[in-house]
Amino acid sequence: MPRTKEAAKAAPPAYPQIAAAEYAHRREAVAAGMEAAGLDALAVFYPARVAYLTGFHHIPTERPIAVVLGPNAYSCLVVPAVEKEHAEAVPGLDSVEVYFEYPGERHPLERVAKALRDIGARPSRTGADHDGYVPYWGYRGPRLGELTGADPQDGELLVESLRRVKSPQELACIQLSCDWAARAHRRMQSAIEVGKTEMECYQPASVATLREMVREMPGWRPRGFGGPGFTAMFVGGRSTAMPHGFVRGRGVQAGDVLVSGAGSDIDGYRSELERTMIVGEPSAAQERAFRAMLALQTRAIEVMGPGVPAARVELEVVKVAKELGVEDNLRHHVGHSIGLEGHEAPFLDRGDDAVLEPGMVFTVEPGVYFKELGGFRHSDTVSITQDGRRSLTDYPRDLGSLVIPA
Amino acid sequence: MPRTKEAAKAAPPAYPQIAAAEYAHRREAVAAGMEAAGLDALAVFYPARVAYLTGFHHIPTERPIAVVLGPNAYSCLVVPAVEKEHAEAVPGLDSVEVYFEYPGERHPLERVAKALRDIGARPSRTGADHDGYVPYWGYRGPRLGELTGADPQDGELLVESLRRVKSPQELACIQLSCDWAARAHRRMQSAIEVGKTEMECYQPASVATLREMVREMPGWRPRGFGGPGFTAMFVGGRSTAMPHGFVRGRGVQAGDVLVSGAGSDIDGYRSELERTMIVGEPSAAQERAFRAMLALQTRAIEVMGPGVPAARVELEVVKVAKELGVEDNLRHHVGHSIGLEGHEAPFLDRGDDAVLEPGMVFTVEPGVYFKELGGFRHSDTVSITQDGRRSLTDYPRDLGSLVIPA
Repeated sequence: MPRTKEAAKAAPPAYPQIAAAEYAHRREAVAAGMEAAGLDALAVFYPARVAYLTGFHHIPTERPIAVVLGPNAYSCLVVPAVEKEHAEAVPGLDSVEVYFEYPGERHPLERVAKALRDIGARPSRTGADHDGYVPYWGYRGPRLGELTGADPQDGELLVESLRRVKSPQELACIQLSCDWAARAHRRMQSAIEVGKTEMECYQPASVATLREMVREMPGWRPRGFGGPGFTAMFVGGRSTAMPHGFVRGRGVQAGDVLVSGAGSDIDGYRSELERTMIVGEPSAAQERAFRAMLALQTRAIEVMGPGVPAARVELEVVKVAKELGVEDNLRHHVGHSIGLEGHEAPFLDRGDDAVLEPGMVFTVEPGVYFKELGGFRHSDTVSITQDGRRSLTDYPRDLGSLVIPA
Repeated sequence: MPRTKEAAKAAPPAYPQIAAAEYAHRREAVAAGMEAAGLDALAVFYPARVAYLTGFHHIPTERPIAVVLGPNAYSCLVVPAVEKEHAEAVPGLDSVEVYFEYPGERHPLERVAKALRDIGARPSRTGADHDGYVPYWGYRGPRLGELTGADPQDGELLVESLRRVKSPQELACIQLSCDWAARAHRRMQSAIEVGKTEMECYQPASVATLREMVREMPGWRPRGFGGPGFTAMFVGGRSTAMPHGFVRGRGVQAGDVLVSGAGSDIDGYRSELERTMIVGEPSAAQERAFRAMLALQTRAIEVMGPGVPAARVELEVVKVAKELGVEDNLRHHVGHSIGLEGHEAPFLDRGDDAVLEPGMVFTVEPGVYFKELGGFRHSDTVSITQDGRRSLTDYPRDLGSLVIPA
């Protein structure tokens, strides 16, 4: 989109955003990796990677979308007609190739193969993050290698290695995402009342916060892959015993354990804030489970810092869980990276060989789950700094602050 | 989950649901296809196919989930620990294999390979719908063929061919989904007022409808892959010019074109109801665009029926578009199938070789898009019957019914 001088002089954006120069810088970094790997071209299909490299966010459908990168940071975006205007507004790309529709008269993946031929990419020197489009919905299609004549080289890590460490601007987006989540969570928590349904507690808080986001950040809109750009909700009672419990409409009752989640989308960047709350005076068993969970999370955060193996964070948590007798109540690892997607690599997991670096951002959310009692889990979003770690989610974690009067 | 005699005698469910017997029947149909294809086993990774074959709905994450089918309709579900209780509650499966976590000490895909070995599946006689897990979020993993020693045979169509034609119970779910959408849409339409933001118009209608769903259908909950189980919203003004426009907070203004969407999730089944509305007296240009869109949609619905090629439906629409001079304003084909997923194959598209059959369900949504004027699109959910077609979305399509007083 052409920028007029007036637009260039306009007030700075009301919220952090990734500038065109940063997207260009990312493409240059991938191009450097391609050169080192001897690749003529790289086809990138996975939606979050397309967004990372171009700023073009889209809701994935059966209509394939790809970025083709070539020498000298050449970039071409292949899109269906429904995304034409949207794609043409992306600054800094060398080419936008538009096909009408999937399935269409010719399979759209042939347009990707043509984009590779157009820049003279040798099939044996072509990389891809996936051998063809990652299937969504009603998509069916050939492998890319069937069209080029050679299996593509695995180029996934050329992009993924960059996504692991966040830039200052990415950190600013994630921080603001956390700040909105905390604001909404406070509002939601104070709306929780015995007798109301879950939805009656959290929907008005969500709507009010979303309205504030629109008002306080002119031009803001959700960039990510679906959703309203903001959520605040919780599940209650025995549903919490499954880490991904469903929301039921049974209403909040005294004695319930509630597990919440709040997050917002700032220029496509996400965060996580989850809290375990107890309705009414906690029982002895609830208090014991809550304190165990809190001890696990506290230990995880203490351990985190630059140079620490990701696996060690989980192993330390498991050690504390053993000491507290809750090892059998773990159902998942300690956390995951977060950024453009809700879950990203690397993971705070015994099997992950990553080493923590400044700029990485993780959720820290060890949980303990009891069939009758429910689930207990906080999630905080934590960045790795030069000399340790910093929690980006400013919200109380202690039991006293999380008891809902009954 | 064990059913007591009391439970068996309980009142019928308050809304249509797919019974365990129907899931078993689907697995038997796939097993018959496997036998015909000479396959010992089939690994199914794509989430909607897992749900289709088992009733196990999940939000896809980096943690791989797969169904392994074997001879005599043998079935095994491989899940991470976060889904253990959820998976073990699925009736009719022969086995549930639980791994702790991704990435974990051993790659979870090895559990899928082990499940195949456990039933003696020969690698060369093993099929899969995707050669390894379909990557989500931070997932990275080997192809299945790298673990079994042979590239799997393409078994995608063994499942997909079944999903194309809906059973009576699936049709009942989709019909009820449409009915809730229409109820919500009426409520939303009557809440639209100049000066309100889009959100202020549709959020209260969404919340009120969701509350009614919970109250009128005891036990109902969203089954699908994320989301609250219900949506009603619209985009306004120039955002409508992009088929997948973003919601902005600028507020409804006289002269706006609004394009809405409403849908709900009944036991995992979706539907689509979209309407183009005009705020205040339509301009001549708006009226012309609206009438063109309506003519395209009317023609598409008229053409549809058993034995009609899917491609013909789009070609007939293009013919009308040419007559009306709006061919260059088309941005997508006429529609897609719908069921467990928002978009499914086959498509009402010139390049689709499907022939319409009774029991297929399509959205019918040709649209015309004008850069300055905005977008004009209705979407109705239409099933193919023995002798024609039936619209499942009972909502007015004419301009007079869709003008919002300004």
